[in-house]
Amino acid sequence: MKISKRGKEIQESPIRKLAGIANAAKARGVQIYHLNIGQPDVPTPDVFYKSIEHYSEKVLAYGPSDGLPELKDAMIDYFANYNIPLKKEHIVITVGGSEAVSFGFAVIADPGDEVIVPEPFYTNYNGFATLTGVTLVPIETKAETGFHLPDIGEIEKKITPRTRAILICSPNNPTGTIFTEAEIRQLAQLAKKHDLFLVADEVYKEFTYDGEKHFSILELEGMEDRVIVMDSISKRYSACGARIGAVISRNTEVMQSILKFAQARLCPATLDQVGAIAAYRLPMDYFKDIKLEYQERRDILCDTLTVNKDIVLQKPKGAFYIMAKLPIDDADNFARWMLESFNENGETVMVAPGPGFYSTPGKGKQEVRMAYVLETQKLAKAARIFLKGLEQYNRR
Amino acid sequence: MKISKRGKEIQESPIRKLAGIANAAKARGVQIYHLNIGQPDVPTPDVFYKSIEHYSEKVLAYGPSDGLPELKDAMIDYFANYNIPLKKEHIVITVGGSEAVSFGFAVIADPGDEVIVPEPFYTNYNGFATLTGVTLVPIETKAETGFHLPDIGEIEKKITPRTRAILICSPNNPTGTIFTEAEIRQLAQLAKKHDLFLVADEVYKEFTYDGEKHFSILELEGMEDRVIVMDSISKRYSACGARIGAVISRNTEVMQSILKFAQARLCPATLDQVGAIAAYRLPMDYFKDIKLEYQERRDILCDTLTVNKDIVLQKPKGAFYIMAKLPIDDADNFARWMLESFNENGETVMVAPGPGFYSTPGKGKQEVRMAYVLETQKLAKAARIFLKGLEQYNRR
Repeated sequence: MKISKRGKEIQESPIRKLAGIANAAKARGVQIYHLNIGQPDVPTPDVFYKSIEHYSEKVLAYGPSDGLPELKDAMIDYFANYNIPLKKEHIVITVGGSEAVSFGFAVIADPGDEVIVPEPFYTNYNGFATLTGVTLVPIETKAETGFHLPDIGEIEKKITPRTRAILICSPNNPTGTIFTEAEIRQLAQLAKKHDLFLVADEVYKEFTYDGEKHFSILELEGMEDRVIVMDSISKRYSACGARIGAVISRNTEVMQSILKFAQARLCPATLDQVGAIAAYRLPMDYFKDIKLEYQERRDILCDTLTVNKDIVLQKPKGAFYIMAKLPIDDADNFARWMLESFNENGETVMVAPGPGFYSTPGKGKQEVRMAYVLETQKLAKAARIFLKGLEQYNRR
Repeated sequence: MKISKRGKEIQESPIRKLAGIANAAKARGVQIYHLNIGQPDVPTPDVFYKSIEHYSEKVLAYGPSDGLPELKDAMIDYFANYNIPLKKEHIVITVGGSEAVSFGFAVIADPGDEVIVPEPFYTNYNGFATLTGVTLVPIETKAETGFHLPDIGEIEKKITPRTRAILICSPNNPTGTIFTEAEIRQLAQLAKKHDLFLVADEVYKEFTYDGEKHFSILELEGMEDRVIVMDSISKRYSACGARIGAVISRNTEVMQSILKFAQARLCPATLDQVGAIAAYRLPMDYFKDIKLEYQERRDILCDTLTVNKDIVLQKPKGAFYIMAKLPIDDADNFARWMLESFNENGETVMVAPGPGFYSTPGKGKQEVRMAYVLETQKLAKAARIFLKGLEQYNRR
């Protein structure tokens, strides 16, 4: 039996593909610091669990396909804190940010259509592009320039008759880069000029450091018909296992179409939406300490790593990832070697190899993504062990 | 801004598209019996909620992309009761049966490929086909013959070089028909002869009446490489809002590919999986009373409706739906009229219009799907009100 071409071609997650090797290392008694996956260690808010405990319906029934209205209300209040006015009809609740991305791709593009995206990008865009038959067209960004956008002319060159949208993620996974308001306004101009959608994955909205402010594409004036945002509570409220996200757009036709895709899969999980309502009702200073904690972690990781002058890394302003360029020739081999052949007093570090965050073959081979999702002491130790591993790898 | 062709073409759910009109009727004080949606009124098992309450992890973290191993173990034990031996690697837990269908389509077919399916079929197959670019090729089945399969030669005629699979749903939504072992073995022969996948949606497995036994395609010998089953706990444990399903196959390449699609969307909801484990651990006699209850409901609904000799309806053997052929010319108009212009002492009935369960234009215009998901007294009353509505509709 032959499976489909896309079934053959779909990328294995660079974040998860080494899981088997990691499990083998654990079985040998090696302790692993997991910097490979963006799983925060911040406790999920108590109110999230509590409100689920208080759920008293006898039947766990289907909810509305576009999500519980109470959750939309809570989100609207949350976005009002950022001076982003929204209405219920601008929001469809999705199964995590993941489903928001696949709905977004489906509504803007047909199989064979193109979406432009700065590279490196969130690796799972590849999977959703494969699922929906969309072609991702990368724009080069570099470690040396903090992964900011190239000259707008370079981006314009990528536009073809099949281009349907420009997609950004800001604050960025995997680079941590926050695209500036000026960068985003340039993209908006380009989208207008060529009649494209401007799509942004803004799930790391809160995670901004050094006083930096995130500029949302929802703040752009006169772009109501072409702006689509993908959102999620996974990182915002440390509820990755809840699978609650959203698509947000003020384009009526987009939202009506997305509602139909949403109807086909019936609804998002009811209990997790109940938890999400409580989380969104937390006061905004909930994020204050969390931000400070992440900023400290970022500093520890970056400052420890850049002691090695061969590592190219500009301290990023957001999210909780860094994309570090290392003095190695094959990040896949290196990440595997760290699990299979290296340990420092029974401990090692797991990272996500760079190539999976690129769609251009051969790119990212010197890079690894590291998530600073461990508490400072553990992270500091992990960074030191990582440096030792890197040194030993290059001497082997 | 132009949205995609598929975004324009995706079908509106016939089950949910009249929701606005129904809400308007409710606002006018009309009480509605919802026979339009397969939302059982059976209480979700207490153990489902209880086990979620006892969940004590501080962080609601990502789970494995293929689902919690404990849930797979519980499912394996459950299937053993049906003499269907499974291993963990044969199962990927999905976000409801819905995601199982889209993963299934993605792994067997590329955009433009064809999947043969008896018509009428579960309406949301249309949505997943649109999402993944797959073409559904219908086989005609008729109310007059209880919606059983036509001669196998008729099915063979539909096979083209682009055909990738035959998809059935048994017990069937929307018809309630259980395809016999003989019918399924014929399909299996055909799948072998033309090197196709045989795919079955078996989410109504337990709901069989009059002593009828459901024959699963997982019971077919020598078909390990071409059998794929889509499954769900939504109806089995009355947990529609949990969104927990599964893809099951013994084809290694299929499962490895589906795992990659699963990795792209990270994981199913953790808490609902915890609940599902407890549900799957219930003794098998949990289903006994539920089956008897549904059988009684089926009898009440069918026996009441067939008093009107112009209604074509063979009492089906499974699931909890009937597809009734009515003496009307436009089921959409009729369903709408029942909500907008009819009530019997302030009460009316909502049904799902037939055409949405067909992909052949013009078909199903005389049919409506009714779900017998209300307790017997309410259902009996709903059936009587429905008959009065039908009468009045034809006199108007």
